[in-house]
Amino acid sequence: MPVILGIDPGSRITGYGIVRQQGSKFSYIGSGCIRTPEADLSIKLNTIFDGLREIIQQYQPETFAIEQVFLAHNPDSALKLGQARGAAIIAATQAELPVFEYSARQIKQAVVGSGGADKTQVQHMVQHILKLTGRPQADAADALAVAICHGHTNQSLINMAGVAKKTVRGRLRR
Amino acid sequence: MPVILGIDPGSRITGYGIVRQQGSKFSYIGSGCIRTPEADLSIKLNTIFDGLREIIQQYQPETFAIEQVFLAHNPDSALKLGQARGAAIIAATQAELPVFEYSARQIKQAVVGSGGADKTQVQHMVQHILKLTGRPQADAADALAVAICHGHTNQSLINMAGVAKKTVRGRLRR
Repeated sequence: MPVILGIDPGSRITGYGIVRQQGSKFSYIGSGCIRTPEADLSIKLNTIFDGLREIIQQYQPETFAIEQVFLAHNPDSALKLGQARGAAIIAATQAELPVFEYSARQIKQAVVGSGGADKTQVQHMVQHILKLTGRPQADAADALAVAICHGHTNQSLINMAGVAKKTVRGRLRR
Repeated sequence: MPVILGIDPGSRITGYGIVRQQGSKFSYIGSGCIRTPEADLSIKLNTIFDGLREIIQQYQPETFAIEQVFLAHNPDSALKLGQARGAAIIAATQAELPVFEYSARQIKQAVVGSGGADKTQVQHMVQHILKLTGRPQADAADALAVAICHGHTNQSLINMAGVAKKTVRGRLRR
């Protein structure tokens, strides 16, 4: 039953979400936000790094999933987002966690079933899939969504491998 | 005699330079480049982090200086640069080094004496200040320049503090 840590990094708020996957089912373990203080850049980035290191120690995830950034619009915010992502990814690699990146489209497709879904639909489906009584905070919901996306993609690959095996067994190999 | 590590981070090449400062004099200790492999983002960023960690262990600097980015032009390259900066800054904070940022203008002013100097002038002056027999590689020269800038700024502050002290001693305090 792999435990997946999903991350939605940002220069001010980094959302995190931890889910346990059992086949195609997911259960909620935890989620929250790391808020960076109004301080020097190095203190901000270290808050993200230390926060994630604690979360990794506490929940012992096996994998780390993060949203891929394809089209940043503003160079200044792209730089800040990049710095936060750098700090987050180093927290994962230093804990020897494999890092997986998924596009926003892949995440929406996996969680809602449509790559064009909006944020509210993603939050609603995260709540539904994890059987949460309340709607999770937006950054935490995005982090849970990327964790679910990783589990889903992983499961699809396992299923495909199973189908491929059966096909090879059932048919002549060329 | 403080040892200063200067860094010029990039998604492909991260230049580093180490200088020792003695008053207003600088001596060269070492410089070079960390080249990131063509690999997944997490491996690239970890190469920067691990590389800098080794350099910090080897040279035991007291401070870490990095160029501040004011105006990134392209969002995509800003994101990549941000990720590299994030990994580099975490290497410093995890080694408990204070991090100082300087603008390109401050660096040129400190090294060449003019905020509008070009790259070749900076390289030439780095070679002159550190009494190097050959011209350092461009990324390493930029890293050495930011280290010199930090030392220079630091020395100016010490001198100013000295002047302020003398002034206070010599005059009536209001």
